[in-house]
Amino acid sequence: MQHLRHCQGLARVSFLRTQRAQLLKGVAPAVTACVLPRWQSSGDYGGQSGQALNSLSLRWTHLLAGLVAGTGAVLAYGLHNSQAERAATPIEPVTPSSFPIYSQDEVTKHKTLNEGVWVTYKGGVYDITQFISMHPGGDKILLAAGGALEPFWSLYAVHGQDHVLEILSEYKVGELSLEDQKKQQKNADSSDPYSTDPERHPALNINSLKPFNAEPPPALLSDNYITPNALFFKRNHLPVPRVDPKTYKLEIEGLPGRAVSLTLNDLKTRFPKHTVTATLQCAGNRRSEMNTVKQVKGLNWGIAAISNATWSGARLRDVLLHAGFGPEVASKAQHVQFEGLDCDVTGTTYGASIPLGKAVSEVGDVLLAYEMNGEDIPPDHGYPVRVVVPGTVGARNVKWLGKIVISEEESKSHWQQNDYKGFSPSTDWDTVDFKSAPAIQELPIQSAITQPAAGATLDRSMEEVTVRGYAWSGGGREVVRVDVTVDGGKTWHIAQLENSEKGQKPAPSPPPGQAWAWKLWEATVPLPAEAQELEIMCKAVDNSYNTQPDSVAPIWNLRGVLSNAWHRVKVNINEDSEGEE
Amino acid sequence: MQHLRHCQGLARVSFLRTQRAQLLKGVAPAVTACVLPRWQSSGDYGGQSGQALNSLSLRWTHLLAGLVAGTGAVLAYGLHNSQAERAATPIEPVTPSSFPIYSQDEVTKHKTLNEGVWVTYKGGVYDITQFISMHPGGDKILLAAGGALEPFWSLYAVHGQDHVLEILSEYKVGELSLEDQKKQQKNADSSDPYSTDPERHPALNINSLKPFNAEPPPALLSDNYITPNALFFKRNHLPVPRVDPKTYKLEIEGLPGRAVSLTLNDLKTRFPKHTVTATLQCAGNRRSEMNTVKQVKGLNWGIAAISNATWSGARLRDVLLHAGFGPEVASKAQHVQFEGLDCDVTGTTYGASIPLGKAVSEVGDVLLAYEMNGEDIPPDHGYPVRVVVPGTVGARNVKWLGKIVISEEESKSHWQQNDYKGFSPSTDWDTVDFKSAPAIQELPIQSAITQPAAGATLDRSMEEVTVRGYAWSGGGREVVRVDVTVDGGKTWHIAQLENSEKGQKPAPSPPPGQAWAWKLWEATVPLPAEAQELEIMCKAVDNSYNTQPDSVAPIWNLRGVLSNAWHRVKVNINEDSEGEE
Repeated sequence: MQHLRHCQGLARVSFLRTQRAQLLKGVAPAVTACVLPRWQSSGDYGGQSGQALNSLSLRWTHLLAGLVAGTGAVLAYGLHNSQAERAATPIEPVTPSSFPIYSQDEVTKHKTLNEGVWVTYKGGVYDITQFISMHPGGDKILLAAGGALEPFWSLYAVHGQDHVLEILSEYKVGELSLEDQKKQQKNADSSDPYSTDPERHPALNINSLKPFNAEPPPALLSDNYITPNALFFKRNHLPVPRVDPKTYKLEIEGLPGRAVSLTLNDLKTRFPKHTVTATLQCAGNRRSEMNTVKQVKGLNWGIAAISNATWSGARLRDVLLHAGFGPEVASKAQHVQFEGLDCDVTGTTYGASIPLGKAVSEVGDVLLAYEMNGEDIPPDHGYPVRVVVPGTVGARNVKWLGKIVISEEESKSHWQQNDYKGFSPSTDWDTVDFKSAPAIQELPIQSAITQPAAGATLDRSMEEVTVRGYAWSGGGREVVRVDVTVDGGKTWHIAQLENSEKGQKPAPSPPPGQAWAWKLWEATVPLPAEAQELEIMCKAVDNSYNTQPDSVAPIWNLRGVLSNAWHRVKVNINEDSEGEE
Repeated sequence: MQHLRHCQGLARVSFLRTQRAQLLKGVAPAVTACVLPRWQSSGDYGGQSGQALNSLSLRWTHLLAGLVAGTGAVLAYGLHNSQAERAATPIEPVTPSSFPIYSQDEVTKHKTLNEGVWVTYKGGVYDITQFISMHPGGDKILLAAGGALEPFWSLYAVHGQDHVLEILSEYKVGELSLEDQKKQQKNADSSDPYSTDPERHPALNINSLKPFNAEPPPALLSDNYITPNALFFKRNHLPVPRVDPKTYKLEIEGLPGRAVSLTLNDLKTRFPKHTVTATLQCAGNRRSEMNTVKQVKGLNWGIAAISNATWSGARLRDVLLHAGFGPEVASKAQHVQFEGLDCDVTGTTYGASIPLGKAVSEVGDVLLAYEMNGEDIPPDHGYPVRVVVPGTVGARNVKWLGKIVISEEESKSHWQQNDYKGFSPSTDWDTVDFKSAPAIQELPIQSAITQPAAGATLDRSMEEVTVRGYAWSGGGREVVRVDVTVDGGKTWHIAQLENSEKGQKPAPSPPPGQAWAWKLWEATVPLPAEAQELEIMCKAVDNSYNTQPDSVAPIWNLRGVLSNAWHRVKVNINEDSEGEE
């Protein structure tokens, strides 16, 4: 199949399996005895709190888990640290000129643990044999053995951080010959797995290029009740797979009888087309505010990792019933796993799961969507088919859907098991136990101010300020009120809520538990007489009367997810025009 | 039917209807032109904030609504006030001796608006003709015309407040003859509608005797995972009806065909017995904390208007399907209304409704319960049959269930329409529009500290404090974490959660969305070295990752419902023993 070839081509899976077996047989037992290299952050964690750096030590349990799982654990690369390192001194890079020159052929000879493992990076040659067992991403590092790091590092933006380069610098043993450097460059130009990523709208604020993660400017976000596809926030974990709709197959496993396979045409013609307007939000939306308390791990999202679209497709419920789902399955299975066609260098696909009850509920509205706002789903959003799980965190809305598995267990994927979970503010990377927290599914009540922007200057002569924003809650809970204050909470102004495009008549209220779409809101608030600076704050309430917490610190968590404290925007008031009146 | 007689006996409905018609024909148009009497609070609203008094003015729209609805609006009696009154001077009671003496016969002659309406209260005779149109409880005041107020006031504790007596004092016209006072007393002793209320456990902390409202001491509450029936918080709106199980009938209306009538035996034998452990919480739980911000209206509940029990009965879903519910009903109706057999002096029963989707959901677990913790449901909790709506505010769990109506509309009852709703902190009794907020159904995430008690003294030599409490969330959302701090939130300690009785093994996790029961929790936290006073705080998180708001003021609302900010308990540390070590 087309999409399987896509992943295999990228992964060189058979090579990895050999290496992993070798590693686990002979080397892994030594891992726990091994001493981590010394390094010090050069600013990536250098926020206002020294605690942040101290808390970011990697536990061996996670390292081992990464070695065995061989999957997205590389996302945790930045955690490379240990108790021992806390007293470490900075590494002074040695001047390049002191190193011997090696040819690519010499380097290529070093690709096993017995021979030593060498890699090249930007013309340098590195003997990383001692580092392999400490690689947070597990043994997939061996994929680069004897060759260049660049093609692999380009998959994960995390490697571009300064401290990663510092770690690497410890292992330098030589320089690659100029001739071979030129050859590498030539290859690199044609082997970037992100080279087939689609074009994106220039207005997007980019958080990471590879994989592509970007959000629209807040002011644009609240211009439209339905976010235009080009501006809908992009959250990719891996390169965008290019899927041929003619050969596309969706596999369904875990139901009585043999696996079911459906073409795109099957999905479009054999099931009723169901349309749902639903807001998707990244678990990391507003993470940047958590960073102001103490540094967290993850993309530094602003307030716009959330968007609203109208999705059409087959209902997952209908497809599962067609594929053999019935009461006897329901009595055993509890989860529906999704696998994407996007995959990492090991061939491991993106994956997630949702509770079976949500998937088969008549009112759950879970879609296998093939249209977004009336068009084919764009490549960045899962072409040709993605899951849309209304009311549920973006991470479970698996894009480029390749496989569905009905199971007694949650997805084993990194993103379900060891990411996208919430913890206490006092839980750090030394104490975190990912098994102790449930995978995020429904998201809590959320709202934010899109206008005015932080730092904007208001004109005193206007006498009032119009505040705009969005509000949404997970689990189909309808936003029933948004309160806005400009006087620190002494007075709260109730915002006007909009559930349709400006100028259009309001949409009818959805049934309880099926309010999947956000509300935009607007409040016009008098400017306080004296203030030269204003802090505008908003908070929303949903129909289960959950409210947003007042402040960020008490909900801070090491992954920076679930950031839903009152949103606060500071603006200035320009007094200039006042004197002329 | 037995229960109908109960209400009619209390209500003298036909009398009321005549009087109401008379009132609406001739007198009602004059209402809006009428001037409210002057009065001033004598401390009932006299908390720390003068704003409280100012905000408690009664709007005419509500008064008129009360006149027409003739129902529980009397609960709003305390709101008697107006803009004009704010500048009012105190009323000086006139000395009793200056009044003429009247016989009961004289008084009885005055029971129409034409003749003037007189009433007696504690030996005084009052001409309340001018007050009738201003009575917040509507025209039900006419039930007392020509007679004593006591039998009616005993139904509603609100009349016992000082300012009500002050209002009354303005209308005094005489004294009742001693002989007739004695006769009245004799009657009163035998006519208290609460005289058949059941005995209650002496440990309960009573918030109101008539109707009976009480909560267990917090420390007892967390002693048992399943709250013993006797200690389960009591929240009655009206006298406890005494229902004969032999003649009990449950009427079901609003389904195709004619109304269905089921006996208690039908419910027990014609439907599978379904058992659910579910926590019920009053919307006003923890209201007393809101009163510390600014006075609210309602019973001054502490933290124990919440309890947990195991309920058994017929599933509402099964009963509705039996009674004719099907897709054609679902396409039109949206609500299931419940009527209790408890009723006020007008014969109006307690009522509430829930969304139809919840009622008929296979996973909604709504019960027509006839057992509570393995026994017949006690009289205070709805004998013989009550509704249990897991995950939903107590007020919708209608007790002494008499009737179910499937409807396109919510219950018209006072408690559904004009009570049990949440508002912005800036909404006061002048600006409140009850139509603007949804009736509370699912409750938000909640937790509180039951031990140590506020003001307790801890022994420094113990070096640590064991903190216990409960945590629960509405809508079947499972509590996944409780954080406890004793240092103002610098450090959070994660509590141990218990979902079964102490010493018993943990219960299996419920399916997502069906976590109806609370968790008890315990955290042992080191005492800070220096502190002589501690503020212990807790906050809970549910599996939709909703959290409690940090503070009370931003969620304050005029009815004092939905009080779920972090719970804070101040304790002292006794240093005495330290010197001896």
